[in-house]
Amino acid sequence: MKIIVLKFGGTSVGTVERIKKVADIIVSYIKKKYKVIVISSAMSGVTNDLVKKSEKISKEFEPRELDTLLSTGEQAACSLLAGRLCHLGYNSRSWLGWQIPIITSGKHSSSRIVNINKKKILKYLKSGGIPIVAGFQGVNLQSEITTLGRGGSDTSAIMVAKFFKAFKCIIYTDVIGVMTTDPRVFKKAKKIKVISYEEMLEMSSLGSKVMQSSSVQESRLNRIDVEVKSSFKNNNGTLITKRKNILNNKIITGVSSTKNDAKITLIGVKDRPGIAASIFKPLSDNNINVDMVVQNISSNGNETDLTFTIKSEDASKSEKLIKKNKKINFKKIKIDKNVSKVSIIGVGMITTPGVTYRMFQALSKNKINIMVISTSEIKISVLISKKHLIKAVAALHKEFRLSN
Amino acid sequence: MKIIVLKFGGTSVGTVERIKKVADIIVSYIKKKYKVIVISSAMSGVTNDLVKKSEKISKEFEPRELDTLLSTGEQAACSLLAGRLCHLGYNSRSWLGWQIPIITSGKHSSSRIVNINKKKILKYLKSGGIPIVAGFQGVNLQSEITTLGRGGSDTSAIMVAKFFKAFKCIIYTDVIGVMTTDPRVFKKAKKIKVISYEEMLEMSSLGSKVMQSSSVQESRLNRIDVEVKSSFKNNNGTLITKRKNILNNKIITGVSSTKNDAKITLIGVKDRPGIAASIFKPLSDNNINVDMVVQNISSNGNETDLTFTIKSEDASKSEKLIKKNKKINFKKIKIDKNVSKVSIIGVGMITTPGVTYRMFQALSKNKINIMVISTSEIKISVLISKKHLIKAVAALHKEFRLSN
Repeated sequence: MKIIVLKFGGTSVGTVERIKKVADIIVSYIKKKYKVIVISSAMSGVTNDLVKKSEKISKEFEPRELDTLLSTGEQAACSLLAGRLCHLGYNSRSWLGWQIPIITSGKHSSSRIVNINKKKILKYLKSGGIPIVAGFQGVNLQSEITTLGRGGSDTSAIMVAKFFKAFKCIIYTDVIGVMTTDPRVFKKAKKIKVISYEEMLEMSSLGSKVMQSSSVQESRLNRIDVEVKSSFKNNNGTLITKRKNILNNKIITGVSSTKNDAKITLIGVKDRPGIAASIFKPLSDNNINVDMVVQNISSNGNETDLTFTIKSEDASKSEKLIKKNKKINFKKIKIDKNVSKVSIIGVGMITTPGVTYRMFQALSKNKINIMVISTSEIKISVLISKKHLIKAVAALHKEFRLSN
Repeated sequence: MKIIVLKFGGTSVGTVERIKKVADIIVSYIKKKYKVIVISSAMSGVTNDLVKKSEKISKEFEPRELDTLLSTGEQAACSLLAGRLCHLGYNSRSWLGWQIPIITSGKHSSSRIVNINKKKILKYLKSGGIPIVAGFQGVNLQSEITTLGRGGSDTSAIMVAKFFKAFKCIIYTDVIGVMTTDPRVFKKAKKIKVISYEEMLEMSSLGSKVMQSSSVQESRLNRIDVEVKSSFKNNNGTLITKRKNILNNKIITGVSSTKNDAKITLIGVKDRPGIAASIFKPLSDNNINVDMVVQNISSNGNETDLTFTIKSEDASKSEKLIKKNKKINFKKIKIDKNVSKVSIIGVGMITTPGVTYRMFQALSKNKINIMVISTSEIKISVLISKKHLIKAVAALHKEFRLSN
């Protein structure tokens, strides 16, 4: 059986008209003799409405009940979609997490899929049925409905592709694919035709919200080809695949950027072994994620300046934690929320020398000062002033010929 | 365990504010040391919205998928209600049809409850939990979600009361109880404090839409005391119970009336044995229900006039069926939609002679002509001109002192 998994996001099934359109897309694959497993999200807006209701009921709504509540969104969308396919003369039905079952473990609202029982779905596929599987939801061993957290329907799709050994998983969404950079920041952004898992992981974690990192990682581990494409336009999307499947020789695949970073600088920190740990531990204990870090070498061996970045919403909390931290001594704390992180990503940089130099030179030519640098094997990130963001993205996009 | 079943209808849980109020009502029973099983409907309006969506998808929406779709309404309401009770510090959770399970058989959208597994709920009650059971839904032996049809949440409540041997089932709704007559027809209608199952059955089937007849019948068969009361006002409602529990000696309990009847008269029907069957069979085959029937004795033994009533929406279809019916011969057909059926109901009439006379005299005094009469052990119905409806109800309400 040549199984393909099609996943439709919330805007793709956002209205009755959209559901009809999606049914037509599904039929087009059936006509090509694929065995199709569909994963559907809730109709857009539905989940948010339910969350709002729960918040009016209680600020700390019981997580088990929240999962039962939110899972209704996907349940409704799946039955509507299956109903449409039946209307068109196909054999289709909705499959809820507990009906398959999709077994999860872990906490409510952030459960993980540990097993998917294939028996019923395989039988149904063999009989010619089109299963519409509810995304985002599963069931735990206590027969309670669970949900998978943010981006959960993508996770459902990837896990179904994995368990059923699908040859491909197509994520239908409201964007045309993964872009070389955020089109809202830089209009000349282009769709990336093909990207490696590793590059996609860097893109996701750096703020390209097409897919959650955990779903990309799962695809990578299971070598599942994933295509991200629009359900609104009939174009090819972006294929996320193994590095060795990628034949083009672009050095850089994309430029990503963030706007919600804040830079904290501690001036005149009394230096001693383990000082960084003493500063960061209370932040970590409070779920504040430290991203980029740079520590100046202390000239007298006694004092140092430490700069690091965090999400800007964590800035004031971080300031408080640092000020009441009795394990550290410093002269002054400076907080700057007007910063942005710009990154270039590409597996090509592994084998191409001089990428860092080209990046720095392109920024320097545009008189953009680099505050902090961090690098990985396939990514270089720099922290710059927020006012230079658009100029920086444009310069890097041009330098690495991403518009071509 | 002294188990009480509380059922809340759609308007009772129609808003977040209403759900909070309902949680408070539940808590008041917990404080009285009852073991409470709650049945909840969907928030009012939700089910209709879902039905509308399904109709836009397909005029003949697949029934299995419709059940999956509609059951989300109760699922959401139950989780919100359980979440509210958790917020108030109680141990509560939603229980869906498949989780208990509530096993049904029969067709989708009109399934019947054949069994309720008590094990999990009893264990949960013993642990101090407040189970919020989704009304209207169950699961069949194929693990498909099923629904119970119109008034299904009442059925769920009565069946839960039956299986768990609850000492009482309280149906919380948006009316203060069962009324002596429709308050929209006659303003001086009073709440009935206590009514027998049999009287309630006649009231239900005659158009008092407080509870579906099937739920009343199930209560009667299982001798479950049912109280219908308002969740908006803190007053006693109407107790529906065994005849022998009723000590008051009212002859008549209520006056019911209908507005959507039509009278069909066939004049000059060629009389022969089995002629009535020949007329009514095609109607019955088309799901048209014939209610009151009167056949004049044919003076010459050859021709007769036949009058009967049907729902007015079936009038034109009935006319067509009769006209194309080749097994019958008649001179003329007359259809009158300006008729109403007025009935008096009361177990007291069994032991009290002269009730029929008093009814006819009260109508006659008001110059109201009676077209057709039908009676049962505890009910007398008359067909009158629709323009006399209010006057007739008022006269009967007064004659049998229902306002006292």
